[in-house]
Amino acid sequence: MSTTRLLSPLHNYGKFQSTASLTRQKSAVGGVGSRSVLIKQNIRRMATYKPTLTIENLNPCIKVMEYAVRGPLVTRAGEIEKELEKGASKPFKEVIKANIGDCHAMGQVPITFIRQVLALVGYPKLLDDPHFPEDAKERARTILKGCRGSSLGSYTDSPGIEVIRRHVAQYIENRDGIPSDWQNIVISGGASDAIKNVLKLFICRVNGKKPGVMIPIPQYPLYSATLSEFDIDQVGYYLDESKNWGLSLQELERSINEAKKQCNVRAIVVINPGNPTGQVLTKENIQEIVKFAQKEKLFILADEVYQHNIYDPNSQFHSFKKVMYEMGEPYRSMELASFMSCSKGYMGECGLRGGYAEVVNMDPAVKAQYFKAISAMLCSTTFGQSTLDVIVNPPKPGEPSYEQFEKDKASVLESLKLRAKMVADTFNSIEGFSCNPVQGAMYAFPQFKLPPKAIEAAKKKGQAPDAFYAFDLLESTGICIVPGSGFGQQPGTHHFRTTILPQPDKLKSMLDKFAEFHTQFLKKYS
Amino acid sequence: MSTTRLLSPLHNYGKFQSTASLTRQKSAVGGVGSRSVLIKQNIRRMATYKPTLTIENLNPCIKVMEYAVRGPLVTRAGEIEKELEKGASKPFKEVIKANIGDCHAMGQVPITFIRQVLALVGYPKLLDDPHFPEDAKERARTILKGCRGSSLGSYTDSPGIEVIRRHVAQYIENRDGIPSDWQNIVISGGASDAIKNVLKLFICRVNGKKPGVMIPIPQYPLYSATLSEFDIDQVGYYLDESKNWGLSLQELERSINEAKKQCNVRAIVVINPGNPTGQVLTKENIQEIVKFAQKEKLFILADEVYQHNIYDPNSQFHSFKKVMYEMGEPYRSMELASFMSCSKGYMGECGLRGGYAEVVNMDPAVKAQYFKAISAMLCSTTFGQSTLDVIVNPPKPGEPSYEQFEKDKASVLESLKLRAKMVADTFNSIEGFSCNPVQGAMYAFPQFKLPPKAIEAAKKKGQAPDAFYAFDLLESTGICIVPGSGFGQQPGTHHFRTTILPQPDKLKSMLDKFAEFHTQFLKKYS
Repeated sequence: MSTTRLLSPLHNYGKFQSTASLTRQKSAVGGVGSRSVLIKQNIRRMATYKPTLTIENLNPCIKVMEYAVRGPLVTRAGEIEKELEKGASKPFKEVIKANIGDCHAMGQVPITFIRQVLALVGYPKLLDDPHFPEDAKERARTILKGCRGSSLGSYTDSPGIEVIRRHVAQYIENRDGIPSDWQNIVISGGASDAIKNVLKLFICRVNGKKPGVMIPIPQYPLYSATLSEFDIDQVGYYLDESKNWGLSLQELERSINEAKKQCNVRAIVVINPGNPTGQVLTKENIQEIVKFAQKEKLFILADEVYQHNIYDPNSQFHSFKKVMYEMGEPYRSMELASFMSCSKGYMGECGLRGGYAEVVNMDPAVKAQYFKAISAMLCSTTFGQSTLDVIVNPPKPGEPSYEQFEKDKASVLESLKLRAKMVADTFNSIEGFSCNPVQGAMYAFPQFKLPPKAIEAAKKKGQAPDAFYAFDLLESTGICIVPGSGFGQQPGTHHFRTTILPQPDKLKSMLDKFAEFHTQFLKKYS
Repeated sequence: MSTTRLLSPLHNYGKFQSTASLTRQKSAVGGVGSRSVLIKQNIRRMATYKPTLTIENLNPCIKVMEYAVRGPLVTRAGEIEKELEKGASKPFKEVIKANIGDCHAMGQVPITFIRQVLALVGYPKLLDDPHFPEDAKERARTILKGCRGSSLGSYTDSPGIEVIRRHVAQYIENRDGIPSDWQNIVISGGASDAIKNVLKLFICRVNGKKPGVMIPIPQYPLYSATLSEFDIDQVGYYLDESKNWGLSLQELERSINEAKKQCNVRAIVVINPGNPTGQVLTKENIQEIVKFAQKEKLFILADEVYQHNIYDPNSQFHSFKKVMYEMGEPYRSMELASFMSCSKGYMGECGLRGGYAEVVNMDPAVKAQYFKAISAMLCSTTFGQSTLDVIVNPPKPGEPSYEQFEKDKASVLESLKLRAKMVADTFNSIEGFSCNPVQGAMYAFPQFKLPPKAIEAAKKKGQAPDAFYAFDLLESTGICIVPGSGFGQQPGTHHFRTTILPQPDKLKSMLDKFAEFHTQFLKKYS
């Protein structure tokens, strides 16, 4: 309990279940004709048949699990969109979903070369079409050759198609300048899938004590949700907002020492570049973390899905693997899982579900069990795997698609860099706001002050103050953000996460609306 | 324990971990140069650094989990393939993977219309290409309109793209002639994913007792693997081989009464058409099961992924939903989850990972929690969703692709029908074999007698007798099947599962080789 306490309680943030049932009732009550028949039928059904799976005997770990990025605020945003479609009058014309790192949904255009390869592997007849460039065809032929029966419709080996795993290892070698073994690569349906499959390994009580995993606060809620589901203790360590969301050794020590009374701390998660916080860790900071993990015998999970998203000219991405390797023994031999995704970077192919884990120095007996566990899910999607292949093996100088690819990539990253600055600058210009620079990733996580009257009003509504603020923002402006309480924050502080993904014009108008809303909000509760 | 006892112990079947490490050692020892350096490095590493995640503190549920379809036999088959590539001399030229329902890997050709739609949604520039038929373009435009930012690269709602969920509901309505609510449809990355997400809900101790779920024996090992992982008791009920693998009420009663002493039996899984057993349940048999489930207050999980694969002219697919509905109250109001997949049927698109669950009469509060739980994994792959869309909304009469599509589909199913008969007939002609007719699905599960000397030899090797037989078959002929002990069988009986998927010529030669092997085997151990 002392460890979960570190996470701001999410239970007051909004009640998913009751919101959902409320909506259902409302729409039923509002209806006529066949709907009222439905209600009667439902009432009759309820009277004659009691369900066997009820909220009382449902998996308790699922009940406590929260996933704010898709929580009640997002549900409400979806409802508002439908109301707008039906012609409802609102003070805005559209909902801006700044709650989720969903690049293409916000107008980013897919990289042509990726989609050409996907069309070719999916429908190989196109290999005869002269409109497709030769390098795309070469990629497609290589992937198809790696598939049984030369079809994307075949199951692959559970850790993925061998040639793609080899390309991933080569990509990592090129990135870090140190060896990578393709047999350590496990391709997955997005990074989330890979992360869950590694976290699952730690579910084990030793001497009656639960396992615990250290996660940053604020964190990406996949971690808190997964740890809840697996009944693993969340051991939160606070990122230092005053030091640009860096990790302090002192805080790591405080966190683990407090947690050790309750659980066996087995692993540490680090998100770099940070989500929701946007920081890029320095090499020195990573070295400190590695030393700490070594001293405490922790398995390191490095969430490095934003490795392409670095905007600050003074920042650089350092992989945990490289830093560990360069530190020499014993650090070089430590266990590490590093995660990467097709959903972020310059490609933003979220819906295709591609990603990988590189698992370093895992005990061979454990690795065999890990591979066995993923085999029951057969394999990850071949289109996701193919997308990953292009990302780790993009067009090379001299190949026909090279220039266009590099141009497309640079254009996305350059625009994100401008937007990162625009967002942080705007928030810093609003009264009561402070926002660290967005050095990397796709989010800003500003802190803001709320007047006591607003906090009181939130309390009355049974909501966390920042959730109260976010709901008001959504209803007034159509802007959908995620309250800081969904990620965790220092008690008494208020934050939210917004993506930097709306296209520049829309982002500008969103930020203008935001500033105006905030002025009105302060007036209302002053 | 009394419930798991019903499953033949899988532990003797083969030791995944030790086989794997053995292989690793062998290949290391066999190597020279850089490999011996590697060994030295590994030894040094082992001496200086002890891993923190070990087999001792690994998730115990993963350790006991088994997944025979991808077990040690398949690992060995993969090794043999590599040995053949390197020119090893064997009594055969290729490995025939009859272990897994992997249609395209065995030479089945993708349905053109499906792949045309996938090429169009993946690379929408092709919408201008006059070579693509208009109905494929219409499907692609509808899917793209359902995606945020009109891109497959966007996240979808967690239960899937609305328009595809609506098409699935329409497909079910057309199939059953009774209403289906699109909001009960949850699209998933293959049926396995959907099944795990529903089974997960039952993890809950009540009055200190573990939950239990009834599964058929023999069963598809996804169920045993998932229940192991979730620490849910497996409550096995035997299918009646003498009654064409039907379900007997008496056996269901025996099974649940025995299990009730140990656990709370919460749900029953029925696989229809059967895997690995190939039976198609009669309507009367389904009615009996429904009545049993109602009496015992069980949630029904109907694995109906082979609903298109019916070969016996006297058999017909009856969905659990339709049968329940037609039985009237209280059966009509019972909770049911039915599963479907893009991997089977006539399409066999295993690698694309598409499927769905239709969840009927679920308590609204539970459903809200279920939807919340899947939201943490964001969404299933958009290419898998698009594949599903084509399957539930195929070309209609009058549309340009209609005739070709129907021809492609009929040709696959007709050929499978012939092969189903060929396989059962051949096994029935071999001494000591008996095989029920393959009425549906993609597998035969023949029973065969083993001479006492062979059973003794297996014992000496620490293997289950049918695994011993299967390894010998693999090494002698290259044919890879799955021993019956991987699915469960009556104690003292021996079975294996083979797919009917090799193309007709190859299947004929495989069966010939099989018969020859068996004769030699009997001679060897007589």
